[in-house]
Amino acid sequence: MTDRKIGRGVAVVGAGMSQFGAFPQLASRDLFVQAFSDMRASVDKGIDPRDIQALYLGNYSSDLFEGQGHTASLMADWAGLTPIPATRIEDACASSGVALRQGIMAILSGMYDLVLVGGVEKMTNLPTERVTDTLATAADVLYEIPSGFTFPGFYAAMASAYMARYGATPESLMAVGIKNHENGALNSRAQFGTAIGEIMAAKVAKAQQKGYPVPAWRDELDFLHDDRANPMIAWPLRLFDCSPISDGAAAILLAAADLAPSFSDHPIHIIGSGQASDVALHDRSDLTAITAAQAASRQAYEMAGVTSGDIQVAEVHDCFTIAEIIATEDLGFFEPGQGYVAVEEGLTRREGPRPINTSGGLKSKGHPVGASGLGQVFEIWRQLRGEAGARQVAGTPRLGLTHNVGGTGQTAVVHIFERR
Amino acid sequence: MTDRKIGRGVAVVGAGMSQFGAFPQLASRDLFVQAFSDMRASVDKGIDPRDIQALYLGNYSSDLFEGQGHTASLMADWAGLTPIPATRIEDACASSGVALRQGIMAILSGMYDLVLVGGVEKMTNLPTERVTDTLATAADVLYEIPSGFTFPGFYAAMASAYMARYGATPESLMAVGIKNHENGALNSRAQFGTAIGEIMAAKVAKAQQKGYPVPAWRDELDFLHDDRANPMIAWPLRLFDCSPISDGAAAILLAAADLAPSFSDHPIHIIGSGQASDVALHDRSDLTAITAAQAASRQAYEMAGVTSGDIQVAEVHDCFTIAEIIATEDLGFFEPGQGYVAVEEGLTRREGPRPINTSGGLKSKGHPVGASGLGQVFEIWRQLRGEAGARQVAGTPRLGLTHNVGGTGQTAVVHIFERR
Repeated sequence: MTDRKIGRGVAVVGAGMSQFGAFPQLASRDLFVQAFSDMRASVDKGIDPRDIQALYLGNYSSDLFEGQGHTASLMADWAGLTPIPATRIEDACASSGVALRQGIMAILSGMYDLVLVGGVEKMTNLPTERVTDTLATAADVLYEIPSGFTFPGFYAAMASAYMARYGATPESLMAVGIKNHENGALNSRAQFGTAIGEIMAAKVAKAQQKGYPVPAWRDELDFLHDDRANPMIAWPLRLFDCSPISDGAAAILLAAADLAPSFSDHPIHIIGSGQASDVALHDRSDLTAITAAQAASRQAYEMAGVTSGDIQVAEVHDCFTIAEIIATEDLGFFEPGQGYVAVEEGLTRREGPRPINTSGGLKSKGHPVGASGLGQVFEIWRQLRGEAGARQVAGTPRLGLTHNVGGTGQTAVVHIFERR
Repeated sequence: MTDRKIGRGVAVVGAGMSQFGAFPQLASRDLFVQAFSDMRASVDKGIDPRDIQALYLGNYSSDLFEGQGHTASLMADWAGLTPIPATRIEDACASSGVALRQGIMAILSGMYDLVLVGGVEKMTNLPTERVTDTLATAADVLYEIPSGFTFPGFYAAMASAYMARYGATPESLMAVGIKNHENGALNSRAQFGTAIGEIMAAKVAKAQQKGYPVPAWRDELDFLHDDRANPMIAWPLRLFDCSPISDGAAAILLAAADLAPSFSDHPIHIIGSGQASDVALHDRSDLTAITAAQAASRQAYEMAGVTSGDIQVAEVHDCFTIAEIIATEDLGFFEPGQGYVAVEEGLTRREGPRPINTSGGLKSKGHPVGASGLGQVFEIWRQLRGEAGARQVAGTPRLGLTHNVGGTGQTAVVHIFERR
């Protein structure tokens, strides 16, 4: 399959997202309608919702988060799209990246020309420990969870294996968080859109104002090593190594490429798509790479006819800081064991040669799990159209990539986007 | 979209299912492996699992039933299919019917030639009230459930509206159960594979043996009117009007039609597919029909180039007895208000002119919700290949149909199958 080109051609003609954050008064349906409305406003030539032919909805666990299943038809109703076919896709935190792939296939199949792909998750109404339990259902609940693992633990295991093999340090991980919060500080939709340096400065200012002892942090790394400012979650991962618990939604409108100019002055073409699965973490021989992401990216590159070196901007799945480092290696941006060097040297900063997570990533922007994959697409759409404002990568990139992972990597899905 | 033919052609080349029933010692993964193995054995010319390129898994709520999400990659692993893309589809009780549709699209898209579609649900480990609560998440949990509805209540509302409009009686509903149990009695995989007359006779025999007062039931209808033998659940629905809580799995292998002869001596071609959504029940103006099923069947008939009158055998979604009556009208087999007359007159019996639910239906065979849609396909595969044994419809039908509904009809999906 990997040697096949996308024949008919599929393009993104609209992209929207809600604010990401914690919204006690909103349900999934409210967030989805926000994202849908935002998407509508993004369609250059306008869109009559009655022309939309199908909905694919990525959602991880409205079942456990809200006690609501059968979510796709409900979202179709609230967006005014009934009676179109509405299909929910669940592949853990890769749900909306996989939903995007189904939307693409639906158009390639010839059955539809105009397909809405959505993603939504409403996580913050549960107490944190129940959120952790719910996220744990993305692992193997018979073999892994009874032994005491939670998701910070899984990624901590990957981080310690990576550090042991390659010599990375906790500071390597911190460099990811610092970079992503710097980007997120320029993103008005981010849940934690504040640079870590600013957070540190605010704490110092508050201590001075209140007459408390003033912390003697020299820089962000120093601040991040403070057990009180940045508590340990699962060694070597501290709080600032973890993405937050979030509410949010995103929506992308796909059109058959030949019809895209009817909707958009600057459609963004999807030229590569790859997806793969893997066994659960406890069955893997190597914790320093995610083989499903490697396989998915190989498929996407081959379909697109490009190489990793051609990608000019990428949104990768940084659910934990270590995940971004591993992702940049799995995608072929850096050699195995070089991803941590790259972030330490600033190569993945917005101004660097290989900008990663210009949106702030899941780390700063937020991680409403079923919406995160499409939140990535929203950023790439903006970057390739030159609409990313203060976050805009110089020169307006022509080729972008999204990398979305489910669980510990039992699912990975990669897409490649092109401005023509 | 409805005027488009399936271009490339897709055929079923294998079909398997597990026993349906209550299996406290088995998890979803065990049931899925049983169905997968059974499917493998059904492929006339054999199948190397390494040739399977993708998995679509229908599953309603492993999240709530087993505390396990991210189910598709896990099933791929247990079937030995890692690293193929594995995608879970959730559309309530229509999950695996919709998964089938995604598998078809995946082949039509040209991305794959050989796709596994599975369905699984493991429901019986929870206490009944928690099963009812879990099923209720397929409704609108903000508007409908707080007002006291559960699924028997929803379908009871449909039944009483139908009876009021058309003059059907509780006996009309009972006729569905009697017919389906007669069929299920010939199905060794059925959860309750016993004719209602046999159940009644066994109870009489037991009373005689024990010296208890012997019930004076004259026939099955009399038995079914007995409040102790067949308690009221939600008027007018009694216990024997409701499908059971079940564990089970099914698996179907799809191939591009041009490749089907490499796998199967008698592939069954899929010539029509339709899917539609609807608002939740509380927002509908008419409870006597399911408009999403009407729309889905219109799409499927048009794609297939056949009419309702051409269909020779059908499996329809009889989660409750009233649902079968309404289904036979929504599908155009009978005029509105005539479905109950048809079942009372025996037209939908196995030997009648319009055989419905020869497998026993969800009512007798069992209703492991995420597997039910593919359990229907398994029966049609057998019927069209002349392999349904004692249940075989005379003359070996050439055209069959499956009708799978999610929730109260917020999702419906219809497929049409042809032996050539």
